[in-house]
Amino acid sequence: MKIHILTIVGVGLIGGSIGLAAKKRGVCQRVRGVGRNKTSLERAHSLGAIDEAFLELEPAMAGADLAVFCTPVDQIAGQVLTAAKACQGHGTLLTDAGSTKSAIVAAVHGQLPDGVQFVGSHPLAGSEKRGPEHADARLFENRLTVVTPTPHTDLAALERTRSFWQALGSRVRVMDPEEHDRALALTSHLPHLLASALAGILPEELRELTASGFRDTTRIASGDPPLWNAILAHNRAAILEALASLTRRLDRFRYCLENGDWTSLDSLLTQAKKVRDALGN
Amino acid sequence: MKIHILTIVGVGLIGGSIGLAAKKRGVCQRVRGVGRNKTSLERAHSLGAIDEAFLELEPAMAGADLAVFCTPVDQIAGQVLTAAKACQGHGTLLTDAGSTKSAIVAAVHGQLPDGVQFVGSHPLAGSEKRGPEHADARLFENRLTVVTPTPHTDLAALERTRSFWQALGSRVRVMDPEEHDRALALTSHLPHLLASALAGILPEELRELTASGFRDTTRIASGDPPLWNAILAHNRAAILEALASLTRRLDRFRYCLENGDWTSLDSLLTQAKKVRDALGN
Repeated sequence: MKIHILTIVGVGLIGGSIGLAAKKRGVCQRVRGVGRNKTSLERAHSLGAIDEAFLELEPAMAGADLAVFCTPVDQIAGQVLTAAKACQGHGTLLTDAGSTKSAIVAAVHGQLPDGVQFVGSHPLAGSEKRGPEHADARLFENRLTVVTPTPHTDLAALERTRSFWQALGSRVRVMDPEEHDRALALTSHLPHLLASALAGILPEELRELTASGFRDTTRIASGDPPLWNAILAHNRAAILEALASLTRRLDRFRYCLENGDWTSLDSLLTQAKKVRDALGN
Repeated sequence: MKIHILTIVGVGLIGGSIGLAAKKRGVCQRVRGVGRNKTSLERAHSLGAIDEAFLELEPAMAGADLAVFCTPVDQIAGQVLTAAKACQGHGTLLTDAGSTKSAIVAAVHGQLPDGVQFVGSHPLAGSEKRGPEHADARLFENRLTVVTPTPHTDLAALERTRSFWQALGSRVRVMDPEEHDRALALTSHLPHLLASALAGILPEELRELTASGFRDTTRIASGDPPLWNAILAHNRAAILEALASLTRRLDRFRYCLENGDWTSLDSLLTQAKKVRDALGN
C-alpha cells in the first residue's frame, strides 16, 4: 500500500515506535507527529521518529493518507472525529492503538464524513514505560496487532489497516471489538489491576524483602495511572467479569490452604505452570 | 572465617550458585555436593560448582565445616537432623536456603547433638528456573539474605552464618523466623499464588493475546509445583493472612469499577505506582 504522509497523534512509546518502524521499513515518505508537549515532540524529532511536529491536530491532517491515534483511550474517539472533519475528501484512513476497542468504535460509528474511514486497532506491545525516548523501531516485530472491524467497516479500509501493521512487522488478527475487550480484560487489564493491588499492600518496611518474583509480578503497576484509569473505566464490565473469575480461582487456593488439600493445590499449581510454560519468556 | 570443607545439599540453581560463588571468592577450599540425581551432580561438577559429588548425605558430612541445605523446605529439617548425627564433635555449622523458616527452625530446635549448630537462612535470590545449569556465581551479589536465629541460637554460630553469606556477596538481615515467614508470605508466597491463579484462568485460545504485562505478572507460575506446594503448606497461616489483605484490596478495586468511582481508582493506582517505582527494576 502507498502512504505518502503518515500522521501519528500522540508520540510516546507506541507512537514513537510506529514512526521509527515506518521510517526504517520505508512504509511511508513522511511522518508527522502531533502532541501537546513541545519538548516531547522535539525529542521524537531528534530521535528520528517524526519528520515534522504539530501542536494542533487539524493542520497535521491535511493531505495525510493514514493517521494513527496513540493517545489515551478516553481521548481517541473525540480526536478521530475532529481529525475526520479536517481531512474529508482525501480518502484518509484513520486507525488507533488504544487498549480498548468497543467504546471507541461505538463513539466513532456513523459520525464520519464521506471519504474518511476508521478501523480500530490494538498492537499488543508496549511496556510500563512512557515517552518517545523508549520508542523502538522493532517494537511490533513478531507481536500481534488486533484489528477490530464492525459489520459496517469498509473491507478495503480493513485490508489497508491490516497491511499497515504488517508493514511495521506485526502479525494481525481480526476480532470484533467486544471480543477484543473481553479477551484483553483477562490478558492485560486484570493483570494490571492485580499488580496494582499487590504493590499497593506492600508496607514500606518490607520493600527490602522483595526479590525478582515480587518485582516481576508487580512490574506493570508502574504504568501511568491516568492512562490506566481510562482503560479500566472503558472496559469495566469485562474487567469485572475477569476479576470474578480470578476471585473464584483464589477461593480455590484459599480452600486448599485452609483445609490442607495439598493434592488439589498441586493440581492448581501444575495446571498453571503448564499454561505459563506454554507462553515462553 | 575459615571453611575448609563446604557441603552443599541439593545442588540446583541455589546450591550450584553457592558452590560457584564460594569457589570464585575463595570462601572455602573444597566444595562437596550432595544430590539424588547423578546426572545433575555431574553437571554441577563439570560447571565447576562442586569438587566432589555424593549420592549419600552422611559421608559428605565427614569433616565438613559448614553445610548448606538447598533442598525443598519439607525435606530440610529431616536432612539437617540426619546430617547432624554424622558430623557431631566436629563443630560443624549447618544452615539452609529454604523459603520458609518457622517450621524448619522449630523442627530442628533441641534435636541437635553437642558440637553441631543450626542457624536458618534464606537468600532472597533465585528464579522460576531449576538446576545447576542456571547457577550463577554472582547470584547473591547485592541481594539480601535473611538469617533467622532464635533466642536459643549460639551467637558465634549466628556470626559465622552471617559472615558466610556476606562472603558470597550478600547483604544480611537478621529477623526472627516468624517475622520472616509473615514478611515472605506477602513478598514471595502470595505473589506465587497470584501468578498461578492468573495463569490458571487463561483459556488456551487467549494465549496469543498475551503480551509482556501478562508474562511478567505470571512468570513465577512456572516454578516447580512440588517445591511450591511445600512452601505454601509450611507457611499457610501467614499466606492466608496475606491473601485476605490482597482480597480486601481487590474488593476496593471492584467497588471503584462497579460504582464508577474514578477518583478512588486513581488513588489506588497512584499509590501502587509509587510503591512499585520505589522498588526499581
